[in-house]
Amino acid sequence: MSLIPREPGTDAGRRLRGVGDLAVLAEQLGFDGFGVGERHETSYLSSSPAVLLGHLAARTSRIRLFTAASTLAMHDPVRAYEDYATVDQLSGGRLELIVGTGLGPTAQRLFGIAPEEQTRLTVESYELLRELWHSTAVSYGGDLRPSLDAVELSPPPHQHRIPVWHAGLSSAESATRPAAWGEPLVTGNLFGTVDQVAAHIALYREEWARQGHDPAAAQVGVGIAGAHVARNSQDARRQFRPAFDCQMQQYGQFFGTAPYADFDAYLATSTALVGSPAEVQERLALLRERFGHTLTYHHADSPGLAEATWRAGKELFAEHVMHRTPEVAGV
Amino acid sequence: MSLIPREPGTDAGRRLRGVGDLAVLAEQLGFDGFGVGERHETSYLSSSPAVLLGHLAARTSRIRLFTAASTLAMHDPVRAYEDYATVDQLSGGRLELIVGTGLGPTAQRLFGIAPEEQTRLTVESYELLRELWHSTAVSYGGDLRPSLDAVELSPPPHQHRIPVWHAGLSSAESATRPAAWGEPLVTGNLFGTVDQVAAHIALYREEWARQGHDPAAAQVGVGIAGAHVARNSQDARRQFRPAFDCQMQQYGQFFGTAPYADFDAYLATSTALVGSPAEVQERLALLRERFGHTLTYHHADSPGLAEATWRAGKELFAEHVMHRTPEVAGV
Repeated sequence: MSLIPREPGTDAGRRLRGVGDLAVLAEQLGFDGFGVGERHETSYLSSSPAVLLGHLAARTSRIRLFTAASTLAMHDPVRAYEDYATVDQLSGGRLELIVGTGLGPTAQRLFGIAPEEQTRLTVESYELLRELWHSTAVSYGGDLRPSLDAVELSPPPHQHRIPVWHAGLSSAESATRPAAWGEPLVTGNLFGTVDQVAAHIALYREEWARQGHDPAAAQVGVGIAGAHVARNSQDARRQFRPAFDCQMQQYGQFFGTAPYADFDAYLATSTALVGSPAEVQERLALLRERFGHTLTYHHADSPGLAEATWRAGKELFAEHVMHRTPEVAGV
Repeated sequence: MSLIPREPGTDAGRRLRGVGDLAVLAEQLGFDGFGVGERHETSYLSSSPAVLLGHLAARTSRIRLFTAASTLAMHDPVRAYEDYATVDQLSGGRLELIVGTGLGPTAQRLFGIAPEEQTRLTVESYELLRELWHSTAVSYGGDLRPSLDAVELSPPPHQHRIPVWHAGLSSAESATRPAAWGEPLVTGNLFGTVDQVAAHIALYREEWARQGHDPAAAQVGVGIAGAHVARNSQDARRQFRPAFDCQMQQYGQFFGTAPYADFDAYLATSTALVGSPAEVQERLALLRERFGHTLTYHHADSPGLAEATWRAGKELFAEHVMHRTPEVAGV
């Protein structure tokens, strides 16, 4: 998954086209999915995930294409339907939506959305989008957009039921709402501690059961703080250190404060998978035992890592971690 | 250019992915540009031109990518900027916008736009989009969308000045407004008669001069009613006849009435280029003399024509018409 941070001094077009190369590499390495984020700040280049995924649909042939995450609050659900149904058709039914509620201050200002309104708007926008996806005669009379009277949109989707994941971690409601809907959860804030993630998933499963859904049908995804594999533990930590520093700086710029000040605390308490192949396998097994998740995703790019180091890390991750535990797929 | 009509009984995904094959063929045949329309009816599949052009950016490498036309009235200019700047970057600066005002009744209903409001909304939406494209500190306080306070959007565009063409034919204002702006005109309704098109262009040039712009700098494009070349005149007419019937039926469904009831009248008075290579060369020379245009565009697909006949027609058009008058480029 890439939020496509804009690297100072690099050409924006080259960076955007490079996302296609990243997706192609992910497909070659055997990852199950590739996602692009949605950010409207000038420090990112991912303001139009639907256009980017339409592009990736042409560059790839097998890999699933994710929004990671799409912030629906500022999108007209009719236009979002049209954009994403087009991506779904162009990709032969490879689209999966991760829906997120957190916009960040720039997007709130750009689209005139008060912070206290973003969750309500996301939920209402998603509910209408879901209805537009599932039905060919949709009526609507709320305050999100002009009313609709038994409309059918075009193009029809490729997947009648699009896989949707609901991202959240910072509020209880972001766990209980998807559980009430009977839809998958993904812990969207990559920087929660293992304990926070586990607590959030427990809340989700509790509400899922309380609603009478089959516990075996609950689907959980986890966004991890970072992934880097090297031949040995020392190399992995040393190589990943500047990527950690970059992550914390970017996160701090976006949300105000960085979640981890200390690299050792990050390695010990976050969901990061940084180490030798054996260490990372063991850490992932531990996470799977605690979370019971079926979808794992992490950042595709690690600013701060040299290209060759980054690539070797992804290759080792694919070879030693992903292909040994195939049910744990990278996005 | 394709509006991507949905052919009954064909798979929507195959049809949409086939637009990529069309664009690749257009590039191979030497056309300068390829465009996709914007339609929100279920009889078309082109509700998301930005996603489609993002897809085509990956499938092609040289050909210019057009919106033909984009109906800006129902788009938030901020989102339109983000989508199209992304396409511009993904394509390495190959995007050109044709902006159209006519939405059709379905889009008017879907987006709650009164027919008498569509021109004003298109103009205001375009003016804000243009400012967002050209400037990195844009403020806005109108009624189109929430206000903006000295904002800069992302990604930056590849082309600092994006080529924009203003489509129109049915109102004088659609000629005089782009002339006043000093921006290019394209006659957007493909089914005007040669006389109507000539009169519209004359009005544009008159206003252009009246505004004090350099007459030599006026740029005009013409959308033609249809193009089909065969070895001889009789074959061309016979082969194209069912495509004419399909066109009139689709046009009638969209706008209420078909512009030509009679095939001979269509051939004699419309801008269609149907005939032998020599006939079409001569007809195009005549049109260029009357219109003085530098951009010619026509439908890429002709429902009603067998695939092989259609393809042979495009190959003959490229070989005998386009490559002999290279300044007349097909879109």
